[in-house]
Amino acid sequence: MNHRIVWRTVGIVLLAAAALLLLPLITALYYHESPVPFLIAMGAAVVPGLPLAFLKPKRSLYTAREGFVIVGAGWIILSLIAALPFTLSGDIPNYLDAVFETVSGLTTTGSTILNDVEALSRGVQFWRLFCHWIGGMGILVFIMAVLPMAGNRSMHIMRAEVPGPTVGKLVPRARQTARILYLLYLILTLVETALLKLGGMSFFDAVLHAFATAGTGGFSTRALSVGYFNSAYIDAVIGTFMLLFGVNFSLYYLLLIGSWKQAFKNEELRWYVGVVVFATVTIAISIMQQYGGFGHALRYSYFQVSSIITTTGFSTADFTQWPAYAQSMLVLLMFIGGCAGSTAGGLKVSRVMLLCKDTLTELRRMLRPRSVEHVRMDGKAVETGTLRAVQGYFFVYLLLLLVGTLIISLDGMDFTTNFTASLACISNVGPGLALVGPMGSFSVFSPLSKIVLIFEMLLGRLEIYPILLLFFPATWKAK
Amino acid sequence: MNHRIVWRTVGIVLLAAAALLLLPLITALYYHESPVPFLIAMGAAVVPGLPLAFLKPKRSLYTAREGFVIVGAGWIILSLIAALPFTLSGDIPNYLDAVFETVSGLTTTGSTILNDVEALSRGVQFWRLFCHWIGGMGILVFIMAVLPMAGNRSMHIMRAEVPGPTVGKLVPRARQTARILYLLYLILTLVETALLKLGGMSFFDAVLHAFATAGTGGFSTRALSVGYFNSAYIDAVIGTFMLLFGVNFSLYYLLLIGSWKQAFKNEELRWYVGVVVFATVTIAISIMQQYGGFGHALRYSYFQVSSIITTTGFSTADFTQWPAYAQSMLVLLMFIGGCAGSTAGGLKVSRVMLLCKDTLTELRRMLRPRSVEHVRMDGKAVETGTLRAVQGYFFVYLLLLLVGTLIISLDGMDFTTNFTASLACISNVGPGLALVGPMGSFSVFSPLSKIVLIFEMLLGRLEIYPILLLFFPATWKAK
Repeated sequence: MNHRIVWRTVGIVLLAAAALLLLPLITALYYHESPVPFLIAMGAAVVPGLPLAFLKPKRSLYTAREGFVIVGAGWIILSLIAALPFTLSGDIPNYLDAVFETVSGLTTTGSTILNDVEALSRGVQFWRLFCHWIGGMGILVFIMAVLPMAGNRSMHIMRAEVPGPTVGKLVPRARQTARILYLLYLILTLVETALLKLGGMSFFDAVLHAFATAGTGGFSTRALSVGYFNSAYIDAVIGTFMLLFGVNFSLYYLLLIGSWKQAFKNEELRWYVGVVVFATVTIAISIMQQYGGFGHALRYSYFQVSSIITTTGFSTADFTQWPAYAQSMLVLLMFIGGCAGSTAGGLKVSRVMLLCKDTLTELRRMLRPRSVEHVRMDGKAVETGTLRAVQGYFFVYLLLLLVGTLIISLDGMDFTTNFTASLACISNVGPGLALVGPMGSFSVFSPLSKIVLIFEMLLGRLEIYPILLLFFPATWKAK
Repeated sequence: MNHRIVWRTVGIVLLAAAALLLLPLITALYYHESPVPFLIAMGAAVVPGLPLAFLKPKRSLYTAREGFVIVGAGWIILSLIAALPFTLSGDIPNYLDAVFETVSGLTTTGSTILNDVEALSRGVQFWRLFCHWIGGMGILVFIMAVLPMAGNRSMHIMRAEVPGPTVGKLVPRARQTARILYLLYLILTLVETALLKLGGMSFFDAVLHAFATAGTGGFSTRALSVGYFNSAYIDAVIGTFMLLFGVNFSLYYLLLIGSWKQAFKNEELRWYVGVVVFATVTIAISIMQQYGGFGHALRYSYFQVSSIITTTGFSTADFTQWPAYAQSMLVLLMFIGGCAGSTAGGLKVSRVMLLCKDTLTELRRMLRPRSVEHVRMDGKAVETGTLRAVQGYFFVYLLLLLVGTLIISLDGMDFTTNFTASLACISNVGPGLALVGPMGSFSVFSPLSKIVLIFEMLLGRLEIYPILLLFFPATWKAK
């Protein structure tokens, strides 16, 4: 284990956090609010960050192990610092609650412990939703985009922070890849902000909802979430942008360089669209009666399906009042999640697709034990190692989901609440069903449960291993 | 596909069913009830069974494919015939309900659509619980034990009918293995019957509850299940025998031939005992208050943990009234299930164990990508092919569980009811939570949901592939 490289990079993460805190600081000043909470948080980041960032590593050795630890430890330390303004401003007096809200922001989950989100000061509200934007594409990918880092080895960091079963570089250099990703991310966010402003949102609301959409986070400045705006136009814009941010960003790169055919041939994209269409139509049928007609039902169904499959978590309706079928379908979407290489959570469409294809291959293998059957994706045979990793991921995901459900059940809430709270956190969705539905709040849980859910959010966002490895003694041993 | 071998064996299954129907027939006569329902069912089995059983196969070719199809088709046809006495006797007038009850019996699930189990006639009651006994060890293993079959190839049938990730023969010949299994099964059943009779049960109740324990089924002659007898002795006997029937039968064979050390070293057994102890103690703590003390709580906790992990489904308490932790723990046990090679359902302890070990190995592999790490069980390295199969099984199990939940949610019941009904059926447990708890009934569901749950029970008992392959066109094509 190359400790110096790890701590140096964590130092850089802290400095980056301090830099990012400038934006809410300016917002606070603009709205004549106290800048002190942000200044103190910046100080708390810079004081340990500066000496760490100047550590000189003895060796430049960089392996997958260091990549995992940097990402896991970096995110936890970042969360602890980023939570400070919430507590220091008095908006969330309890620090554990503040950490919950911050982790929910950074991991783009969107579960809230607040009972009155509209009471927050402007600067804090900005920081809360800006966390979605930072966490969506990733703080380390951000750093990589703006700073020269240890060359190609930084790919190990990228692999640990970007979601999906396989992470490919768009261009040979990792740094260039990070830049392209952030540029695409920025452009899409700006376009959405403009469209929302055109729809009559205030500039403040437009920017913040664009942040939350981009990161597929789901926090809102309004207690009624996007339902507050009560506009078919805004529903359509956000509904569609959620879907766009749930697509693998490398496809946008393909569009950008003119490889349209290759982008639209992408199998994961086709499955994603297929699931969205199926879920939207069948849910619309099931809620027709409540909404007096298929057309109106389709508007609410489309928004909610987009919101849940991309694990954003915005709502325009209290879907805990929908029929059981609609609710079960949404739970299924919480498992699936968005595409690999997007800002969405969940298992990811490509993993579910590979697992389904592998099942069919397994059936074929049973009929002809001696023949060699390959699972194919995008026309290419998938390596057995990749399949094994996807299958292993599926198990550990389910295991953590169920263990999480078990521990939080100590609080005595009903099974639907516990199961969907655990699922909503590990899949980074935000709302669940029953008590943690879109009109509910995670404030009902005990401190122990909140800690469990905080870890589930981090495990979900970083795809489990970077966090799990931190608790694995062998990780810290020298080679 | 060797159709003649398949249909000949299905014919033999029908004849065996007719023979087994003799026992409830005698019971009906003994209690002065009409034997007609059983006679008609026997006729319905013999008429197609006889000509099929005398089909001469053109080739003696026998592969895994034929094994799967024989077991899948055999069980479905057996269920359709075995359901006849329920409807013909007028005890369950609706044939679909009768099929549900029969499949629940044969698959040793124990979910019931009856609202008044005590109103059944004696002959029908006997048949209902005798189905548990037949289904527990398997009808084809039974046939194999009593009839000479196509030599060693019958191992393909045994593999398809006996649960677990790997099925080994106890002795070189499959037929001998089948005989040993049924002998052990019979002896344990007789011992339990004697112990229950000693505890004050009527002979009829003792035999039938021993059948239901042996198959880890869970039907009871009483509406209050085992709770009716209200006896700590009976709770202890049934609680312990459930655990015994949830153990891999090959371990009893090892005891029989004196290899005690090897039997107790078995890793699956250790995990099984570990899970039972942990669950029993923690649930007892959580329900202490309701039962006025740890000792009393332990009695109810031990019984319910044994009942659920072995997927029997007997109850001595309405655990839907227990605290959330106890209920969540029971749900977790429903996933795990008993040991491979036992009569219990669920994923099986060995599969869960292999998946957990594989997760640890995966973590180690991440730290040292170039080293070769093996998952070991009972001191031996597990083949990658076996691990892949276990992982694939886990996915398809969860997929079917969730798809089942989704379809039955069309009936409009709450999420907990739908999810646990689906889980209780695919894991062959019997009761779930909420509306399908131990005091509830599956009669609340629509015909469509009942059909879905019938398939889930069959999928669970036969470990998915024999049923799934029946709906896979390639299965039926000639080679």
